[in-house]
Amino acid sequence: MTTLSLRDDFPGLRTADGKPWHYLDTAATAQKPQAVIGAMARALGEDYATVHRGVYSRSAEMTLRYEAARRRTAEFIGGREDEVVFTRGATEAINLVAQTWGMTQIGEGDRIVLSTLEHHSNIVPWQMVAERTGAQIDVCPLTESGEIDLGALEALLGPRTRLVALGHVSNVLGSVLDAKRAAALVHSVSAKLLLDGCQAAPRLKIDVADIGCDFYVFSAHKLYGPTGIGALWARREILDQMPPYQGGGAMIDRVTFEKTTYAPPPQRFEAGTPAIAEAVALHAAIDYVESIGLARIHATETELVERLRTELGAMNDVTLFGPSDSAGIVSFAIDGVHPHDLGTILDESSVAIRAGHHCAQPLMDHLGVPATARASFGLYSDHSDVDALLEGIARTRRIFG
Amino acid sequence: MTTLSLRDDFPGLRTADGKPWHYLDTAATAQKPQAVIGAMARALGEDYATVHRGVYSRSAEMTLRYEAARRRTAEFIGGREDEVVFTRGATEAINLVAQTWGMTQIGEGDRIVLSTLEHHSNIVPWQMVAERTGAQIDVCPLTESGEIDLGALEALLGPRTRLVALGHVSNVLGSVLDAKRAAALVHSVSAKLLLDGCQAAPRLKIDVADIGCDFYVFSAHKLYGPTGIGALWARREILDQMPPYQGGGAMIDRVTFEKTTYAPPPQRFEAGTPAIAEAVALHAAIDYVESIGLARIHATETELVERLRTELGAMNDVTLFGPSDSAGIVSFAIDGVHPHDLGTILDESSVAIRAGHHCAQPLMDHLGVPATARASFGLYSDHSDVDALLEGIARTRRIFG
Repeated sequence: MTTLSLRDDFPGLRTADGKPWHYLDTAATAQKPQAVIGAMARALGEDYATVHRGVYSRSAEMTLRYEAARRRTAEFIGGREDEVVFTRGATEAINLVAQTWGMTQIGEGDRIVLSTLEHHSNIVPWQMVAERTGAQIDVCPLTESGEIDLGALEALLGPRTRLVALGHVSNVLGSVLDAKRAAALVHSVSAKLLLDGCQAAPRLKIDVADIGCDFYVFSAHKLYGPTGIGALWARREILDQMPPYQGGGAMIDRVTFEKTTYAPPPQRFEAGTPAIAEAVALHAAIDYVESIGLARIHATETELVERLRTELGAMNDVTLFGPSDSAGIVSFAIDGVHPHDLGTILDESSVAIRAGHHCAQPLMDHLGVPATARASFGLYSDHSDVDALLEGIARTRRIFG
Repeated sequence: MTTLSLRDDFPGLRTADGKPWHYLDTAATAQKPQAVIGAMARALGEDYATVHRGVYSRSAEMTLRYEAARRRTAEFIGGREDEVVFTRGATEAINLVAQTWGMTQIGEGDRIVLSTLEHHSNIVPWQMVAERTGAQIDVCPLTESGEIDLGALEALLGPRTRLVALGHVSNVLGSVLDAKRAAALVHSVSAKLLLDGCQAAPRLKIDVADIGCDFYVFSAHKLYGPTGIGALWARREILDQMPPYQGGGAMIDRVTFEKTTYAPPPQRFEAGTPAIAEAVALHAAIDYVESIGLARIHATETELVERLRTELGAMNDVTLFGPSDSAGIVSFAIDGVHPHDLGTILDESSVAIRAGHHCAQPLMDHLGVPATARASFGLYSDHSDVDALLEGIARTRRIFG
């Protein structure tokens, strides 16, 4: 029994009448600890000021906080602070790479490799680039157990491959990519590797330098942080090459109607007043996560995944998707019960799961289902959540008789 | 004496040792009332869930809150709820229009009209469009008193004019555009009018239907709301024409590797998990502003502007910029005192002004100065703030001898 006892830190983990809420949708978005909520309230309240521009001390202090958040974010994933761009979230981070690096470095006849399990946010931006440039998309298949097949990836790579964009951890299957091996393969053909770390950053210790990838993106709201902010990490020499994304204040060097020049990265990519309070709250989220430690978080989630997969696997009418060593996420189906109906009935017992395509329709097509039920764990999850889910499944089965 | 007594609602308006902070930088960003901070904390805490996807009730409730925020935002400016897109801020809203509507509706040889007083966020995105399309930018000059010269605008408009993008209220001069007349002129040549409402939305009652503009943008953080969110309003028939901006979850209809189809507006333009808590907090900000009323806010700010301009105007060594009926903003210079030095000395007296180019370098070039000192008021401002500023100026003058 290694699960942590952190529920009391999370005001979101209670129902309106003060009972435990069994929240098993952390892969969609994580609940926030009071430390994050408090950091947000202070940043919007007694500490509030704009950044980068004020000549008064509170603005200078907020600028230090904002840049400290950038430094903390960089450290958290093993990058340098001048390599981290704050974005609205991982989706915007991928779009930023696609529209700046992609639109200048990818041309007609070039190849972009994605995998079958990608989230829509790591598919659609590349389809847009392909449509505008005449590049082609190659789809890397999965192994039988639902991992990105690196043998197949190796065979797909060629001299025209410019970019490989892969999910570090699948948001549906929980399968973990061997990111270091992927990076070596991708670099063997001089292509770049982008990793969608939305599900990995809250579950695994990330070290972009050790992995050797070129771009890494994640969202704060899935990392126990606020909505409205995420991060793009890219190697400095790549950021230096990238033209601006959005135009506006703070990203310029000098503006005239004749000619405008731009600031160096990361400022070049942060037009307008940034998500100031959100950056401060993201810093608090990273502090919280690291105070517990990703090894302990991973151990907790692994214990819960193993138990849930074992219990569900013993049921004749349940199909389990994904590998047995899934990181924190269990997708499944019950014969004769639509995932949405399961989700609705579980809700009556204060159990929240996700039912749907999980923004991964090509993966649903591959699995041959329109939707799955998905239970996903977080650092606050414990065996009572699994108990409640299993009881709810038993109840659903009785209702569907 | 019509100023309001609202300081106690704003935790940001005190110094660290509990004394009044004379915050005269509301045009950069507004302080937030406790109602907004509390709404944010609840949305990230006991109410937190994702939107649009969950099958459990708390997610359905949060979806209602998120869409209620959209409805409230639309009502606030006289638009329809299906015409409001949430963005990171006004800067992103303008970039969104530039990259979707602009890149498809503006071509080589077309003309984009801006004015001399535009904020960089309403210049650089259009320079990017012009550079990529071969369109030309025309610059509408100002009147002697610092208003956009609508007579000159009329002369600039022609059959190739596709878009006119103007600040509704100048962030440096406070000059107010006759937006309705501008819209009529712009439409007389079948061009579209975009209004940058960042400084107008917190100071004037906006009615986009009455104005007759085509696009309206503003940021929440300047409207006493949170960072990390803003709004784009556009006529529904224009939104319908616009291709997607960022690709990802929530903005799609159906994704396959062969072909992806997109959701209708406004969802089409909101890829990824949105700024959920920020939308809820923006709703609270609009409620707060309307509970006071823009007429009263405008009257308060006008009283303070008139007094400050009168007092500064009586000083031989002070240059005042902008018109006498400036909305809430007073830009000035003191002979022999650099604005930054003034700002630094004022800071020692707990008075916060802005000193710099205010992200409006072309306007600085026009005024023939590298920077101005700017005092800007908000609904919480009162005569004690003007007193403190005037005392600080007197002290600065003594220091500079």
